[in-house]
Amino acid sequence: MKLLRYGPAGQEKPGLLDAGGTIRDLSGVVSDLAGEALSPAGLAKLAALDPGSLPAISGTPRLGPPVIGMKNLVCIGLNYADHAAETGAPVPKEPIVFLKSLGALSGPNDDVIIPKNSVKTDWEVELCIIIGSKAKCVSEAEALDHVAGYAVGNDVSEREWQIERGGSWDKGKGCDTFGPVGPWLVTKDEVPDPQNLSMFCDVDGQRMQDGSTRTMIFGVKTLVAYVSHMITLHPGDVIFTGTPPGVGLGKKPNPVFLKAGQAMKLGIEGLGEQTQRTIAYEG
Amino acid sequence: MKLLRYGPAGQEKPGLLDAGGTIRDLSGVVSDLAGEALSPAGLAKLAALDPGSLPAISGTPRLGPPVIGMKNLVCIGLNYADHAAETGAPVPKEPIVFLKSLGALSGPNDDVIIPKNSVKTDWEVELCIIIGSKAKCVSEAEALDHVAGYAVGNDVSEREWQIERGGSWDKGKGCDTFGPVGPWLVTKDEVPDPQNLSMFCDVDGQRMQDGSTRTMIFGVKTLVAYVSHMITLHPGDVIFTGTPPGVGLGKKPNPVFLKAGQAMKLGIEGLGEQTQRTIAYEG
Repeated sequence: MKLLRYGPAGQEKPGLLDAGGTIRDLSGVVSDLAGEALSPAGLAKLAALDPGSLPAISGTPRLGPPVIGMKNLVCIGLNYADHAAETGAPVPKEPIVFLKSLGALSGPNDDVIIPKNSVKTDWEVELCIIIGSKAKCVSEAEALDHVAGYAVGNDVSEREWQIERGGSWDKGKGCDTFGPVGPWLVTKDEVPDPQNLSMFCDVDGQRMQDGSTRTMIFGVKTLVAYVSHMITLHPGDVIFTGTPPGVGLGKKPNPVFLKAGQAMKLGIEGLGEQTQRTIAYEG
Repeated sequence: MKLLRYGPAGQEKPGLLDAGGTIRDLSGVVSDLAGEALSPAGLAKLAALDPGSLPAISGTPRLGPPVIGMKNLVCIGLNYADHAAETGAPVPKEPIVFLKSLGALSGPNDDVIIPKNSVKTDWEVELCIIIGSKAKCVSEAEALDHVAGYAVGNDVSEREWQIERGGSWDKGKGCDTFGPVGPWLVTKDEVPDPQNLSMFCDVDGQRMQDGSTRTMIFGVKTLVAYVSHMITLHPGDVIFTGTPPGVGLGKKPNPVFLKAGQAMKLGIEGLGEQTQRTIAYEG
């Protein structure tokens, strides 16, 4: 299944994308794609529906993030060996974990705001793991039982604030609109091997990132189990699993960063695509 | 006003503590201490009530965190010069910012769970700033307009995970029960000078921390303004403002850490006290 949330920001309704690409309204079945609706039993209930029996939504409504009600947007740093190399950092011995403010969460095609006084805003296409049921101190063997599915994410990052301003990376990761997720949650039954998905990020039509989840250092099962021993994962929680090479910070001979008026397009095999426009902060 | 939330975890009701120390039920007035209820207008509405006209709650119910519905538990690191010194870290040039998982939030007197495999769980009494209205890119002069009030917090920390496991501090800060806040939110009108409050933390009756917000490096106004330029602050958000000297990590000749079966007692002048028991992880 491809599950999504459509409508104006803050007023999204749950829906699913049927085999013909039509959005079908789920608001008569579940109140939202959150909590129990994401559990194995909740997803089984949705999978048993005949999509043709659900109201079809016409037009192309805005899409929100495909899940809501989470407690955590967890991010994994430097999780691709070749990306670690391009940033000049050593390959981590165990996962680097940080958190993104929940306020950063946004729809897959929403504008990305270049923050006030930012000069180093950068892109990062990432495989997002969407948690379906509470995971606390789970083993790698149990990890996938707690995963609802996967989505595309853009771990937008302000590099100066992340790296040059002291303290944790969180400073440069939690700005408003720095967490587009979607277009949909693809349930795990449709993603038999999450460690073999091609992925890309284009900026103004130029291919910047071109990678595969095959080169991840720590895979999905390892990450869910690892994080769950420190931070309990809850339904709707998102783990951004790190980015392949090609971020602006790593460009040679000089880093390249985003300016207002640019277009990002990101995609992962089988998980769909996002398109974002960058806009200037106003306020 | 002293605002609080009482009742079983996840089912708390809003209340206030009257001048005689009796809890008065606010659930007929506001649905919860979240969102608009924390705005200047929302707090003015509560302040206009006659507490004697509200239902009195008998007994001593459990207290939950005094606010809910937040997007961020922001923490400031090494924000007391003498605490920075005891940990061997340089005094930061600008605030160190990190995030605590929302799942860590707990009531002021709830048990603190020593995480599975933890050997370095530590205490940190902290002044918590409670945000009342959205703050984005605000100046220091505007900062207090967005503050609802203050509370006691314990920024419980697993030092091995925070410091020795690579990456950000977030690993050791977001475990379940690592964020007791309360007993109440004291509105800012009752805290004329948040930079002159004595504070303490006792473990098993022994005074471990004995400090004052007077020695904070970056004060309340500075922190709200600084964070708001990176992470937009929302109603109910909590900023843990750092801890004075006396944490277990800094004890001489050897660090001291928490074990199951101990009692923590923490307090800040005018903001009340917390008492937590440490218990072993079971699962």
